[in-house]
Amino acid sequence: MRFVDGGVTAAKDFTASGIRCGIKQQGTDLAVIYSELDCSAAGVFTTNAFKAAPVLLSCERLDSGRARAIVANSGNANACTGEQGLKDAERVCARAADLLGIAPELVLNASTGIIGAPLPVEKIESGLEKAVRSLAEDGGFQAALAIMTTDTRPKLSAYEIELAGTKVRVGGICKGAGMICPNMATMLCFITSDAQIEASVLRRSLASNVERSFNCLTVDGDMSTNDCVIVLANGASGCRPIVEGSPDYDLFDRALGQVCLDLAKAVAKDGEGATKYVEVRVKGAATYDDAKAAAMSVANSPLVKTAIFGQDPNWGRVLCAIGKSGAKVVPEKTSLMFGDVKIVDRGEPVGVDTDKAKKPMLETELVISVDLGLGTYDATAFTCDLSYDYVRINAEYHT
Amino acid sequence: MRFVDGGVTAAKDFTASGIRCGIKQQGTDLAVIYSELDCSAAGVFTTNAFKAAPVLLSCERLDSGRARAIVANSGNANACTGEQGLKDAERVCARAADLLGIAPELVLNASTGIIGAPLPVEKIESGLEKAVRSLAEDGGFQAALAIMTTDTRPKLSAYEIELAGTKVRVGGICKGAGMICPNMATMLCFITSDAQIEASVLRRSLASNVERSFNCLTVDGDMSTNDCVIVLANGASGCRPIVEGSPDYDLFDRALGQVCLDLAKAVAKDGEGATKYVEVRVKGAATYDDAKAAAMSVANSPLVKTAIFGQDPNWGRVLCAIGKSGAKVVPEKTSLMFGDVKIVDRGEPVGVDTDKAKKPMLETELVISVDLGLGTYDATAFTCDLSYDYVRINAEYHT
Repeated sequence: MRFVDGGVTAAKDFTASGIRCGIKQQGTDLAVIYSELDCSAAGVFTTNAFKAAPVLLSCERLDSGRARAIVANSGNANACTGEQGLKDAERVCARAADLLGIAPELVLNASTGIIGAPLPVEKIESGLEKAVRSLAEDGGFQAALAIMTTDTRPKLSAYEIELAGTKVRVGGICKGAGMICPNMATMLCFITSDAQIEASVLRRSLASNVERSFNCLTVDGDMSTNDCVIVLANGASGCRPIVEGSPDYDLFDRALGQVCLDLAKAVAKDGEGATKYVEVRVKGAATYDDAKAAAMSVANSPLVKTAIFGQDPNWGRVLCAIGKSGAKVVPEKTSLMFGDVKIVDRGEPVGVDTDKAKKPMLETELVISVDLGLGTYDATAFTCDLSYDYVRINAEYHT
Repeated sequence: MRFVDGGVTAAKDFTASGIRCGIKQQGTDLAVIYSELDCSAAGVFTTNAFKAAPVLLSCERLDSGRARAIVANSGNANACTGEQGLKDAERVCARAADLLGIAPELVLNASTGIIGAPLPVEKIESGLEKAVRSLAEDGGFQAALAIMTTDTRPKLSAYEIELAGTKVRVGGICKGAGMICPNMATMLCFITSDAQIEASVLRRSLASNVERSFNCLTVDGDMSTNDCVIVLANGASGCRPIVEGSPDYDLFDRALGQVCLDLAKAVAKDGEGATKYVEVRVKGAATYDDAKAAAMSVANSPLVKTAIFGQDPNWGRVLCAIGKSGAKVVPEKTSLMFGDVKIVDRGEPVGVDTDKAKKPMLETELVISVDLGLGTYDATAFTCDLSYDYVRINAEYHT
């Protein structure tokens, strides 16, 4: 598995573009991703009861397992916009389909930005002409830029694998800097591959990899109305079909997983106001759900996150977050490390010197390791600290 | 029902004191609450898997339904202190029992403060002499002061009711300024009454009232290792026994409920860094659990809380928090108000003018009302906003 450039245009016969159509006050705000060939397609969407119009539309279209293009805009979420919102999303897809010369059902839609305001369809429609004209084999970076909101940097990742001598690529772009719903920082992720794979197989690989990456990612515990992860696979690599349970599937699954992990970590690192990236690794849990609950409880604790911002090895707050997680926990079996410094050994504080305990807290990346000592399941949560700037960004943003 | 002064010493034949024994760097840090008569007793404790020693001890002693005194210290939580911690808690109770001339089993214990450090038993033992000597009929205020940590003010509430012509009082004291576990701001609440009531009946009334008050209180979503609510009833009023299902019970239950509510609201108002007190009132839910889940999801959302700090009527964030709560929600039936300004009517934004929507946000107390339009259940969550100062207080506090 080899890292390659290009993100969503790393795979063969995918093009992309990112242009300005004038929704945001500045910067590019309209992206198109397009495949020369029909694709197997799968998606994972927010479980929030208030789903935005593009989520409803794309989710329904993905029932077919087929797609060829994605139109995504930033600056307006097309959420809480009722019937009109759905009509607007359809109109955007229809215009794109027209310009691309494909069936409208093959166009997916995603939006991120302000809520409750009507989608500026005219701006998007006229922008689409330029966006389709600008489609390029190296357009992944431009597309990554055009979907940004409070992000401070574009997020791309792609890998190349070899299946029976054929080179296959999987790559994606992502935006998000907090589960900052629903105004400015929805998590959107688009992944492409030139693998040949059935939609049902693709769906399974996507679902398990999203569970271990984006579903273990938290900046502030909030979940947007617009979150989505969409993957398209066009088969252009000419590889033999990837069937479940085969070594090819394992390799593809790992590559897709790595793309998801890279992008999820990139979101945590770009968390609003973040000064530190944090991984909470829980092992020894009685079940996977326990491991994830414990890891997410630590990653979501404002007390833990502010202590990390303050560079304070406040292990009591970590134990407390584990204890309230609902996971099966036996205090006398629980061990804890900051970086490679053991803090608690099977329930007993090891009485580590404060300077030594503090050392891992001074780095820009912190690993908190928890061993529940009860079983063989593990999970890792990806997050960041909670700083003054998180409060500033979210208090000062005005509707 | 009439508000009266005195908190935990408002009821007959209860005395209390608060003195300095030298655990904290400054201020009083040891409180004793004592009844001249044996009491029916009940308690509700943290469900955190890491329970502090005094929680384990008091919880076990309350199995008997009898108690006569509570010893509480601030400055040290006696949590994560293993076997030694339990021995220390017992030693503290034994010394208090000796000085008070009662059985050690009738003394309960509570602690709040730093975690993982051995309890300074000698300081507490010598302090107990002065604390017992200082017990006074108007000592409720001193006791409320002595249990404070990051609190900015003492919290007391008491009410008088009449049962068949006999005056009966229920009153309490409380500390907490965040579920700020486990270092400095555990929630401790002690309630006394001169009602005559069986422990089992008292327990039921306490449990249902805690559910609607302290269990609906959130400052930052964290839950301490030391949280507890304890109630003692000594029968000194001479009222007839309160039996379940009687009008007397209803009155007593309401008075106990009001004390719990007053104290829970006082904690929310004193939330670390809080600039605004917030009530999230959800009605029209299909079940009580749904109502509570929706209210708590809004009250725990960092996005909602920072928007309130920024005085921004960001209703999208409220809808989003409701949508992710897991409660049954139908967007087209959901209505929302800030103060008395309708913002969303059955899923449709009413397009209220921004200045008008912003007006309730400028007050120091904000009511967010949600109608799910699905049933008859309601719940109210008590919280505060999330400010720079919350981050400062929790980042700068060092272990």
